[in-house]
Amino acid sequence: MKKYFIFFLLSFLIVESVSAQSPEVITIKKYGTENAGNIIKEFSEFLYLPNVAADPVGQQKNADFIMNMMTKRGIQKVQLLRANTVGVPPAVYGEVNVPGATKTLIFYAHYDGQPVNPAQWAKGLEPFQPKLFTDAINKGGTNIPFPADGSYKSEWRIYARGASDDKAGINAIINAYDAIIKSGLAPNYNLKFFFEGEEEAGSPHLHEILEKHQSLLQSDLWIICDGPIHQSGKKQIIFGVRGDVNLELTVYASKRPLHSGHYGNWAPNPAMMLAKLLSSMKDDTGRVTIKGFYDDVTPLSLLEKKSLDEVPSVDEQMKKELGISAVEMKGVTLSEAINQPTLNINGMQSGNVGKMASNQIPTYATAVLDLRLVLGNDWKRQQQKVINHIKAEGYYVSETEPTDEEREKYAKIIKVVSNSDGVNAQRTSMDLPIIQKVIAAVKTTTQNQIVLQPTMGGTLPLFLFEKYLKAKTVTIPIANHDNNQHAENENIRIGNLFEGIVMMASIMMFK
Amino acid sequence: MKKYFIFFLLSFLIVESVSAQSPEVITIKKYGTENAGNIIKEFSEFLYLPNVAADPVGQQKNADFIMNMMTKRGIQKVQLLRANTVGVPPAVYGEVNVPGATKTLIFYAHYDGQPVNPAQWAKGLEPFQPKLFTDAINKGGTNIPFPADGSYKSEWRIYARGASDDKAGINAIINAYDAIIKSGLAPNYNLKFFFEGEEEAGSPHLHEILEKHQSLLQSDLWIICDGPIHQSGKKQIIFGVRGDVNLELTVYASKRPLHSGHYGNWAPNPAMMLAKLLSSMKDDTGRVTIKGFYDDVTPLSLLEKKSLDEVPSVDEQMKKELGISAVEMKGVTLSEAINQPTLNINGMQSGNVGKMASNQIPTYATAVLDLRLVLGNDWKRQQQKVINHIKAEGYYVSETEPTDEEREKYAKIIKVVSNSDGVNAQRTSMDLPIIQKVIAAVKTTTQNQIVLQPTMGGTLPLFLFEKYLKAKTVTIPIANHDNNQHAENENIRIGNLFEGIVMMASIMMFK
Repeated sequence: MKKYFIFFLLSFLIVESVSAQSPEVITIKKYGTENAGNIIKEFSEFLYLPNVAADPVGQQKNADFIMNMMTKRGIQKVQLLRANTVGVPPAVYGEVNVPGATKTLIFYAHYDGQPVNPAQWAKGLEPFQPKLFTDAINKGGTNIPFPADGSYKSEWRIYARGASDDKAGINAIINAYDAIIKSGLAPNYNLKFFFEGEEEAGSPHLHEILEKHQSLLQSDLWIICDGPIHQSGKKQIIFGVRGDVNLELTVYASKRPLHSGHYGNWAPNPAMMLAKLLSSMKDDTGRVTIKGFYDDVTPLSLLEKKSLDEVPSVDEQMKKELGISAVEMKGVTLSEAINQPTLNINGMQSGNVGKMASNQIPTYATAVLDLRLVLGNDWKRQQQKVINHIKAEGYYVSETEPTDEEREKYAKIIKVVSNSDGVNAQRTSMDLPIIQKVIAAVKTTTQNQIVLQPTMGGTLPLFLFEKYLKAKTVTIPIANHDNNQHAENENIRIGNLFEGIVMMASIMMFK
Repeated sequence: MKKYFIFFLLSFLIVESVSAQSPEVITIKKYGTENAGNIIKEFSEFLYLPNVAADPVGQQKNADFIMNMMTKRGIQKVQLLRANTVGVPPAVYGEVNVPGATKTLIFYAHYDGQPVNPAQWAKGLEPFQPKLFTDAINKGGTNIPFPADGSYKSEWRIYARGASDDKAGINAIINAYDAIIKSGLAPNYNLKFFFEGEEEAGSPHLHEILEKHQSLLQSDLWIICDGPIHQSGKKQIIFGVRGDVNLELTVYASKRPLHSGHYGNWAPNPAMMLAKLLSSMKDDTGRVTIKGFYDDVTPLSLLEKKSLDEVPSVDEQMKKELGISAVEMKGVTLSEAINQPTLNINGMQSGNVGKMASNQIPTYATAVLDLRLVLGNDWKRQQQKVINHIKAEGYYVSETEPTDEEREKYAKIIKVVSNSDGVNAQRTSMDLPIIQKVIAAVKTTTQNQIVLQPTMGGTLPLFLFEKYLKAKTVTIPIANHDNNQHAENENIRIGNLFEGIVMMASIMMFK
């Protein structure tokens, strides 16, 4: 009786949803609670390993650590998958063949983290010295030692680079399998594990690894465990990502900076020219006015539309948090906005402002545009629409700085370049039977709504899985929304880590 | 006979206009040619003295040098005029009372120069080590020693900071008086000399000096010897300056930088907001669309209009030089443009471009505007027109960063500040009898047209002379158009220096 009482108390402390629906989920939660001390001890050791993608020696230590985690738990064929390019961090692979299983799930997370600037972290924090706090630091959390008795509370947080993005994913996936086995349960799928080491660097060699190990990496579905849960605090499953491509525009005027008194309003001003050009790309309701910009979009299916309608609104919460009282695209919710292609100004510069400002007419003005793409868009075609618009505004478009001849010939001259290839959007249909099973599995972990997002606003190179493996993907994030990923003071909420184990295990087991 | 031949040869070498109209002018030219060696030797010593306004010790040496130049030539009451503020460079004063003279001319030039960045100067050049070249460096001029026999050619150039802007002015004014006296001629006016030491720093203490020494500085006309002659190569007289005032605009959006994928085109983009705002300030023909922007302008007199019509067109020459094939204000010549108030973007910045660019929505966007003013404009009223326009575009205008309350209340928030007080325009009527005499005097020095400009495009604090002394001013530049003033490789063309002496002397003597 007393033992039962303790179990329920601990359970309440580190998992969110006490009234889960399936006995399997209850069992996994119990395992998590009882083994929290060891799970976090190992996680903490993992977080001590610096994991910047540009440091191959550090990355090798992380890869070795993960291999050891898997081997200890009886995962088979544990190995490093290397790219053809020499000296880049390998992916770590392992697999489990389950008797009687007919389908294979492959679980993805990444072990590299964003570069760190220790000076930006809060006092007392070091990116690679994980510390436990009683809450988020900006909510008054204080540093406490890791408890010797292994009893953790769900609102506690571990601060370290990679704590949420994405070593938490690796921890949750491997421990989910461990929890299933140690609890005497069994997966319902063959399982594969794939942990990348270059995601934060833009996955520059992922295509090499996928192409080289095509047959090893065959599966029925990739489960991408990365990113935060919904801003409402609800779990979410994301079925796609937007694509992305950049354009840098540089408008040229006089060859040398001019005295604004002697030549102002006679000589062309590149900042004003650029302002007019950018201004012509959107109307006053925030819609892009470039011809055909919203064409090509593959419409959402009925199921996707329904899911989108059910996404909890965080618009007012986010407006308050961001200190804004109006949105750019009038009458469009955040959920709707991320299902459309966008045109966004990332940066804009001409002459100087502030203390360096001088009474001059600058020689050029530059803007960087970021075009997010949805399913149906092609990054080259979308870029070309922008270029066609610029031409229709009377510009001579070139990819290089203008020559004297061009300057003499054309009144309006612009250089348009793209610093890298674009990435198309990817979206997996919610209707697929295996996807329906995943949704059902996640539903067994909570009584709350599961947010089903047709796409996330951001971009991941998920098209690579489609391109090189003809694979389907679905993204299931576990980190808390306020995890500070990519920035200083990155953290994972204990409750989210353990709910992550429960979610991954429920997917592995679901029949 | 041989002597005559040499005289004409030398005369041809260092002065532009051999067929001057008056015997006095011929005499002064002869003096210049015969004394070129000594004049340039002294000028060169002067150029060795560093003359940055922020260096009071260096400036004192310059002031002492000028006092010595004047004393040697018998100029009287030579003294330093100090501001009330301690530690700022003094003005250098001197005067000559001419028997029978009823009117007084006061000649102005400044001895301070723009700050220097020696690294930007051409190889072999040091800002404060004057060197002689056979032509402009960018036209293939080569360095030669200063000739021992004092025979200079008009196309030669001296390179040094201050060579043209504005130690050439001081040199021309003092040597003009010297040439008159040494040639046995006489001035027709009482003469005063006023050489400022802080012009390039924006004359921050000039008003103190003028106010403190009001009675000493009384005159009938200030002759401002500063700046370059007309781009056509013709001499010019300038009767006014434009005023100027700046405004810095900062549009605010989200409090923290946002991921452009997750929030782009939902959250407001400050760069796009600023682009639209700036764009609303001008139409496609380059006219300012701000309500009442061109009101208040005092129309040009008939004489001023006629003079303006006669200004040689340099538009095509400048377009070629600047590498532009169209102007901002369609159908308006450069001469016309500088007789109108302007709105110019000096600088614009939001987020980052180039290597620092990231896929973000910036938190703010800033632009610096420069408003040039013509006679009739008041800088405060002109600023207010811009602010009224911004309000009419739906902005909440503040002078500080927005508070959370303001962010919640207003959809469009902008900070509008001005870093310093403005300066109004100034213009002296061409009809005044004393002005007519000055024009006639300059005409005696050349058969070419004298360009009469109602105003220059730039701004000088000439309104101070009007305000504190109720004085009239007229600007008579002597430097070559391509003198690189304010920049690296500043230079004076020898011909322009000696023509400057001739012009100043002709004004002093004209009856």
